Amino acid sequence: MQAPPARPGDAVGDIDTPALVVDLDAFERNLDLMANAARGAGVALRPHGKAHKCPEIAQAQLERGAVGICCQKVGEAEAFVAAGIRDVLVTNEIIGGAKLARLAAMAKTATVAVLVDDVAAIPGIGVAARAAGVNIAVLVEINVGANRCGVAPGAPAVAVAQAIVRTPGLSLRGIHAYHGAAQHLRTPEERRAAIARAVSLAHETKAAIEAAGIPCPTVTGAGTGTWQHERDSGVYTELQPGSYVFMDADYQKNALAPDQHHFEQSLFVVAAVMSAPVRERAIVDAGLKAFAFDSGPPLVYGAHGWAYVKASDEHGVIAVEPDAPPPRLGDRLWLVPGHCDPTVNLYDWIVGVRGARVECLWPVAARGALG
Amino acid sequence: MQAPPARPGDAVGDIDTPALVVDLDAFERNLDLMANAARGAGVALRPHGKAHKCPEIAQAQLERGAVGICCQKVGEAEAFVAAGIRDVLVTNEIIGGAKLARLAAMAKTATVAVLVDDVAAIPGIGVAARAAGVNIAVLVEINVGANRCGVAPGAPAVAVAQAIVRTPGLSLRGIHAYHGAAQHLRTPEERRAAIARAVSLAHETKAAIEAAGIPCPTVTGAGTGTWQHERDSGVYTELQPGSYVFMDADYQKNALAPDQHHFEQSLFVVAAVMSAPVRERAIVDAGLKAFAFDSGPPLVYGAHGWAYVKASDEHGVIAVEPDAPPPRLGDRLWLVPGHCDPTVNLYDWIVGVRGARVECLWPVAARGALG
Repeated sequence: MQAPPARPGDAVGDIDTPALVVDLDAFERNLDLMANAARGAGVALRPHGKAHKCPEIAQAQLERGAVGICCQKVGEAEAFVAAGIRDVLVTNEIIGGAKLARLAAMAKTATVAVLVDDVAAIPGIGVAARAAGVNIAVLVEINVGANRCGVAPGAPAVAVAQAIVRTPGLSLRGIHAYHGAAQHLRTPEERRAAIARAVSLAHETKAAIEAAGIPCPTVTGAGTGTWQHERDSGVYTELQPGSYVFMDADYQKNALAPDQHHFEQSLFVVAAVMSAPVRERAIVDAGLKAFAFDSGPPLVYGAHGWAYVKASDEHGVIAVEPDAPPPRLGDRLWLVPGHCDPTVNLYDWIVGVRGARVECLWPVAARGALG
Repeated sequence: MQAPPARPGDAVGDIDTPALVVDLDAFERNLDLMANAARGAGVALRPHGKAHKCPEIAQAQLERGAVGICCQKVGEAEAFVAAGIRDVLVTNEIIGGAKLARLAAMAKTATVAVLVDDVAAIPGIGVAARAAGVNIAVLVEINVGANRCGVAPGAPAVAVAQAIVRTPGLSLRGIHAYHGAAQHLRTPEERRAAIARAVSLAHETKAAIEAAGIPCPTVTGAGTGTWQHERDSGVYTELQPGSYVFMDADYQKNALAPDQHHFEQSLFVVAAVMSAPVRERAIVDAGLKAFAFDSGPPLVYGAHGWAYVKASDEHGVIAVEPDAPPPRLGDRLWLVPGHCDPTVNLYDWIVGVRGARVECLWPVAARGALG
């Protein structure tokens, strides 16, 4: 773990660069908005920890009424449980005896749930649960259009549910119906149509499981791009958004319906100009190891005529328009990551700032928790 | 820091996934080949630590005759110096009193050098050196065609050199003439032409500095894509390749001249199939947090008819051709990263394997050393 790039009380201008910085005012407004929106609709909120990997942020979400958190990996869940989080849903299939033993060990101190999309995976989870003397809640992941993991809705999902309830040590919590691909569809009409289809498939599958005599209390899913549709569906009982706490350049590209609005950008990488060899180019100290580039380069926040155009491992090239202020050594830029989740995963620390001061340093405890 | 994904002596098939794995036989052949090629030409080898961020690998390079290592960040250099490396060149401009104080502190126990491309940056480095009571070696970075950092060759570079030698606490080691953009030009003719131009600019600049009465002993640069040209130039005295120890999918795309050959692929991410919902698709447990995607997706090594086609945070989608073996839960894939340096930066551990056994676990000590 690297040394923190600032201390509480430091001036924002003294944060060592590059650093991952959260504007706490914007961040807290995002937390409140989502918490109130879920509560007002009577739907549970279980925010996704893969976005922030930070127990302090999970606690802030729980304090606002979240029922628990989601994780994507056993190692992530372990970091949250070790920090005191007591209800974790691993929104992923987990394969192999060693990982399943770790999953079951967590269930001794926390409520633990996991996904299954294949009858063949169930016996191993049952063995791990019984060996640890715990119960593991299982949800059937169904494919609602993302074509990633997930058993087909309807009868194939019922067969998985039946195998779960037949297995000692396991209990069926419900179905997981997350449409990842829909989150980044650019028009509100496309997102609405994709989720309408997901709602229909989730509804039909829940009904089929119940028709087989198996209770199916939970239907969980949704992300920052589509959560309003799942919330208002009458079918989903739980929402899993993650990125809403931070936002990023990619989510900002979604066009919104008139009754929707973007969460605020609260996450930034603060970088500094280390070279300004010509009037039209500045080089900053944040490159491929400071941002994930899968959703494009970062945006330069609040600076007109400066654009981040190219990256190498530890350099970012900023193109400076002729009528923009000329770059100077030491100039600081606030950059909006293209994709927040894998960018956060590059940092050991989140620097929380309020106004001109550093207020807190939060460890990204689950950074690098790949296994 | 995450727990290691294996222990020495484990079977390779028992490594927890996803894991960063190095085939030690191929890796050692790569080290030997480069060491011998530099030694045979009478050119110094100073491999770049930004590729591996691992003191054990730096030591293996030094044992084979490397004169020291390169780093890109002060934090990286600190990790290597803390592990006992005694000669470090930071191949980057370093700005700001706090970072420069750390750079100077290292010079108490190691030979430390850094780049400058702007007269305005020199006084700060001098202040830091004198405050620590050390000497810092400085190289003038010139722009030889990458259009990133670097002062213009010729007279502007001479002015920087003159300012360095006038500054107490600093000494001029020479010029840094690295052409990063040339490394990935695809044809041998393009790379040869780009480096011929870089050699000419480096030569002219060195001559101009010496004509001003300033010794300029070192001309350093080169990478895994072009090192033979700098080595044979008669101008470069030192080579800085990094990726040759591992290789990656992007470097494998370079077409080579008849007298050149690729280093061996020694770096892999081992991932496992966690979902195989349909015959034509498998989902592995390694996605955007397990690979850098700036140079494209990973390649599936040694498996015909399987292709890594899409990634989300913790999922990789593998397309399976109709005539390829069908995917099964738990299947293990060896994946070749698109770009080795930022992929290594995602892992806390390198798993060294020889044949069917894990031989060693090396910490990626400088992972996340951004500042």
